[in-house]
Amino acid sequence: MSNEHEYGYFTEENSAEVVVARNKNAGDERLKQVMEVITRKLHEAVKEIEPTQEEWFAAIMFLTETGQMCNEWRQEYILLSDILGVSMLVDAINNRKPSGASESTVLGPFHVDDAPELPMGADICLDRKGEPMFVHGRILDTEGHPIAGAKIDVWQANDEGFYDVQQKGLQPDFNLRGVFRTGEDGRYWFRGVKPKYYPIPDDGPVGKLLGALGRHPNRPAHLHYIISADGFDALTTHIFDPDDPYINSDAVFGVKKSLLAEFRKVEDAEAAAAVDVEAPFYDVAFDFVLSHAKPK
Amino acid sequence: MSNEHEYGYFTEENSAEVVVARNKNAGDERLKQVMEVITRKLHEAVKEIEPTQEEWFAAIMFLTETGQMCNEWRQEYILLSDILGVSMLVDAINNRKPSGASESTVLGPFHVDDAPELPMGADICLDRKGEPMFVHGRILDTEGHPIAGAKIDVWQANDEGFYDVQQKGLQPDFNLRGVFRTGEDGRYWFRGVKPKYYPIPDDGPVGKLLGALGRHPNRPAHLHYIISADGFDALTTHIFDPDDPYINSDAVFGVKKSLLAEFRKVEDAEAAAAVDVEAPFYDVAFDFVLSHAKPK
Repeated sequence: MSNEHEYGYFTEENSAEVVVARNKNAGDERLKQVMEVITRKLHEAVKEIEPTQEEWFAAIMFLTETGQMCNEWRQEYILLSDILGVSMLVDAINNRKPSGASESTVLGPFHVDDAPELPMGADICLDRKGEPMFVHGRILDTEGHPIAGAKIDVWQANDEGFYDVQQKGLQPDFNLRGVFRTGEDGRYWFRGVKPKYYPIPDDGPVGKLLGALGRHPNRPAHLHYIISADGFDALTTHIFDPDDPYINSDAVFGVKKSLLAEFRKVEDAEAAAAVDVEAPFYDVAFDFVLSHAKPK
Repeated sequence: MSNEHEYGYFTEENSAEVVVARNKNAGDERLKQVMEVITRKLHEAVKEIEPTQEEWFAAIMFLTETGQMCNEWRQEYILLSDILGVSMLVDAINNRKPSGASESTVLGPFHVDDAPELPMGADICLDRKGEPMFVHGRILDTEGHPIAGAKIDVWQANDEGFYDVQQKGLQPDFNLRGVFRTGEDGRYWFRGVKPKYYPIPDDGPVGKLLGALGRHPNRPAHLHYIISADGFDALTTHIFDPDDPYINSDAVFGVKKSLLAEFRKVEDAEAAAAVDVEAPFYDVAFDFVLSHAKPK
């Protein structure tokens, strides 16, 4: 007979149990498990909130409009996941690192797959706009040994807070992107410009929600990295400018204490000439530690 | 200083607290409270599910497509709310009735505001298709007294499971809809056709989810009522055919035990003539009890 008989008909008290029982014939065990948790937590939330019919409908319309804001260039549901800390939580769950390894943070929407491989030391800033920056450090394993042949994929916003893909025609293609590969010493170095904070797109339902919650849409200035090497877990992360006005209130919760770099201002012309930039410039030293890949 | 300092930066452990703390300047206290519960339950769900990045993205795409399925005629997010039991839960929370009053169930999407007021006894079936049905009963208060002047707004699907608004041109306008008003005895009676079960729209993401969960999309046969009278809480409800094949597995969880009616088949020609229908017909007797409105 019907599964409903196990619990009787739907009531306020047994609501989640009745709904979950209905899924007993789900073909996929994982889907069944996921929907069991979602149903239980959703019903707990509704019971705690006790929405009016009008509030329920406002939620329906918010979810609808968030979907309808999405197109080929805009993913409003990812933004919603970001500002609710869900994207960072999923990242944390999927990237638990052994002690000593560098921490991950969100990929973000501005990575491109085909950035050019450049000689170590290259200037990724193709339009010479902004304050010069020299970034350098080492790629190490958890025992402190340098990793040779590590691939470093780096990208950043310009000094106005925009990525090249957001300003096609205004910035050169592949501006502020590059792929580098370490030698035997595990060292990397390249030149760029000091990045600036920028807002996530806030002209949709998610931006409206942020406003209603008294929150700003800004992400503090950062550089993106994906670092990979044979035998190691790939690391997707940022480094952040600790002096950014939004360093303690990243709209998407991407900041971790271990990812704060120092953007050290250097006025000395000789030091600048030594790394082929003009003074004053910002010197950013940051080492990354990769975790050994688990044997498969 | 930044609110983040209260909890430090985002970690897997403190994730919900960090996000909730960020909303401290929300202008609307209710929104702040709602988002606090939603954030907490959402993070609990993610921590219990531990989605992979691929599963997270599948969820993002499901939510996106559900929004994009919505248009002037289709509200896929309400369907999602329905099949997860959320619509019924919100209905239950907003319609807690005193002992003895009739129970409510969901409004559904097929009510129209301007159905014609008809004389008691009228046949709401304008195209004579289907098996005749005679519906009758009383509108009572919780002390058992008849309510005079109660407005009874009734609507139903036809014997193929479609409402008039779903079959414009195929069914007459206002087919199987009517508004009646009780006299001093609180009695109501009208003629219609025996309704049939029907599927909720299942050609979108929600229908796909139902299929993956091993669930059918059908609602058991029912008649819709909104009953209102001065001094009483309005009642939005259905009555159901207990012999329907889907009575124990309503796709939207609308069935309540107290809303099961008896659809009694009557073969007797004289009994049929007495209520101005042809034999055989279905006799459906059902009393509704309204709760007294709370003084404002």
